Amino acid sequence: MNFLNEVVARFPDALSFAPGRPAEGTFEVEDLPRYLRSYTDYLEGELGWSRERVRTQLFQYGRTNGVIHDLIARTLANDEQIHVSPESVVVTTGCQEAMLITLRALFARPDDTLLVSSPCYVGVTGAARLLDIAVEPVPEGTHGPNADEVLAAVRRTREAGRRPRALYVVPDFANPSGASMTVEARGRLLAVAAQEDLLILEDDPYGFFVRAGSARPTLKALDRRRRVLHLGSFAKTALPGARVGYVVADQEVIDPAGRRSLLADELSKIKSMTTVNTSAVSQAVIGGLLVESGCRLREANAASIAHYRTNLSTVLEELARHFPAERRRALGVRWNEPAGGFFLVVDVPFVADAKALERSARHFGVLWTPMADFFLDGGGEHQLRLSCSALSREEIVEGVGRLARFIEAQVATADA
Amino acid sequence: MNFLNEVVARFPDALSFAPGRPAEGTFEVEDLPRYLRSYTDYLEGELGWSRERVRTQLFQYGRTNGVIHDLIARTLANDEQIHVSPESVVVTTGCQEAMLITLRALFARPDDTLLVSSPCYVGVTGAARLLDIAVEPVPEGTHGPNADEVLAAVRRTREAGRRPRALYVVPDFANPSGASMTVEARGRLLAVAAQEDLLILEDDPYGFFVRAGSARPTLKALDRRRRVLHLGSFAKTALPGARVGYVVADQEVIDPAGRRSLLADELSKIKSMTTVNTSAVSQAVIGGLLVESGCRLREANAASIAHYRTNLSTVLEELARHFPAERRRALGVRWNEPAGGFFLVVDVPFVADAKALERSARHFGVLWTPMADFFLDGGGEHQLRLSCSALSREEIVEGVGRLARFIEAQVATADA
Repeated sequence: MNFLNEVVARFPDALSFAPGRPAEGTFEVEDLPRYLRSYTDYLEGELGWSRERVRTQLFQYGRTNGVIHDLIARTLANDEQIHVSPESVVVTTGCQEAMLITLRALFARPDDTLLVSSPCYVGVTGAARLLDIAVEPVPEGTHGPNADEVLAAVRRTREAGRRPRALYVVPDFANPSGASMTVEARGRLLAVAAQEDLLILEDDPYGFFVRAGSARPTLKALDRRRRVLHLGSFAKTALPGARVGYVVADQEVIDPAGRRSLLADELSKIKSMTTVNTSAVSQAVIGGLLVESGCRLREANAASIAHYRTNLSTVLEELARHFPAERRRALGVRWNEPAGGFFLVVDVPFVADAKALERSARHFGVLWTPMADFFLDGGGEHQLRLSCSALSREEIVEGVGRLARFIEAQVATADA
Repeated sequence: MNFLNEVVARFPDALSFAPGRPAEGTFEVEDLPRYLRSYTDYLEGELGWSRERVRTQLFQYGRTNGVIHDLIARTLANDEQIHVSPESVVVTTGCQEAMLITLRALFARPDDTLLVSSPCYVGVTGAARLLDIAVEPVPEGTHGPNADEVLAAVRRTREAGRRPRALYVVPDFANPSGASMTVEARGRLLAVAAQEDLLILEDDPYGFFVRAGSARPTLKALDRRRRVLHLGSFAKTALPGARVGYVVADQEVIDPAGRRSLLADELSKIKSMTTVNTSAVSQAVIGGLLVESGCRLREANAASIAHYRTNLSTVLEELARHFPAERRRALGVRWNEPAGGFFLVVDVPFVADAKALERSARHFGVLWTPMADFFLDGGGEHQLRLSCSALSREEIVEGVGRLARFIEAQVATADA
């Protein structure tokens, strides 16, 4: 990714469909002290804590698994109908740490293998690489990973003498593909997981941001057999700068002496060796934001949801305007139409690599992300990812125009 | 450590010499918004940033290696005479993450071995275990690890067919032993490191807190050949709740294509897979605190330095009062007299294990930490660690009295 980052950095004035950064919305710096105050008011007023106890909570080293686990559990119940005890919630330094400690806890044997959709979010494959964990790609369909492909990957892994331990999946509006699983596909995946003794690592940062249709239940909300670990992020729904995420790990663990505990307690032992505990200041900021929302973050995100819906719709409309059906066929250009989220994928009739990106930036003033970087086993060479999260409507209209001119020019050059 | 934590939790009213938690001093919750404001004022006023840019810095994902690296570099120059470029400073989620990413970056080969003082801080051995890195203990002397013992460990490691890659060392007032290296010992260690191609991971969280004599130069300040990576923490000198630490990695790295970069840039690739970046909110809080101190944290810690000096002196005085020289000899009790820091070690004529701790808590209302947990290869069974950082003078006087009664009772029981 480093050459990509260099290209992006060299063209700061280009319109960028590259980064998946959240929109800043109405955020102001002054919100931070207000969130802090809302949280400490909650501790003093609602929980009846003394001033000294509040002070200690903000100043000191704290509980390894976090201090806003109760607020997160309440929010999950309200927003996602995920009903778990606060003790099964581990608060982490962003979702990235949640992935890291979860993988470290679950992948104990050298033959343990992680199944991932291909194309896949680089955060999880990076964490697996950091821990030397083997990864087996599952080719993604239009509707995300399907149960048959997962089953085939499970069998392939076993035949290679390895143990398929868990599948990482983004069920809604995946990064990078924008694909989403149907409700039926979620049920089938849970059945395969139970049948094959496979855990599911569900990551759902974009689930709120529905463009078409309605929100679907998370895998964790459908999980009746505790096969699912639910990874969470507040980066898209609250404040990326706080670096607060979490993992719900309500599985029961039985140690050699027969003592029962929660998987969350095992994660705690690992977290104490990665970051000790998540910043109390960051947790207080997110805690205050949750308190202010009444632990209903979906409602609090109404404006963001509308923003991302409009943005994705605008990209799709502008693509259709610049490439009417006939022109699309003639050029060999097409794209998917995700039902929500930040991302979509455009198929182009040329190699969409870092060099093409540099031409796009230099001569047309528009940035995007090559898809090939997200594939584990080749693929995506003729695809580019567009992210529309952080642009205004005007920038999208102008940006898709530039992109269209770039694509037309690439095709014309190739034809010449 | 879990059984220990349970004991500590079961006796909340006991006077505790167990945890190494910093004193809360004059900290108030209201300091947090003020630090935030001091930092944003610095960005707008001193650096001339626009309001929008400040907002984005606090809201968004940020630079992987952090945003207060310039303030940290200035503080290191003022406080420690460590002169490094800001680009060689990686801001981390506490010192624990600094250890984790440093170990992951440096320990590439399966035979790479980490040398550590024994007894040793559990954070670094835990991070090594998390990454399956082999550890070789170096028996600690009265003045910390000495060059001859390090050399012997290097040779032992090589003879076992392994590569000694780095030595982890706390030069000042180590946790758990309280031992400190003389200036001469520091010079000899640097010479051995150069001669044996060994890197030094220097961790110096307690260096400010001198009781007797004067502060000594860090290994990094003496480092002329870039053998030292300097790990830093703001937990003891500023605010543990912010979880901000750093590592100075100014070593040059040359890749297979001959391109030169800083080791800090290699750490960045790993950090992007552990926590993406350190909380912008936490960095702003620490940044504001550094700005308010004029990047002179040693001066800003004058009250803390006096507090810890008094506390450690009081423990030593009270021990001497309860165990005069003759009684000490008769019982077989002794202790070291660290020149600073939070910790000292008491040798006792009985096994100081978790069961003894429970008796101490239940019947005498005093807690401490068994030393055996800090040894890698046995040792410390008859030693206990006292931490005096978070107690008042009155608590120390009362606590040492209770400890003396516990020790006397243990000896009497054994004699009976």
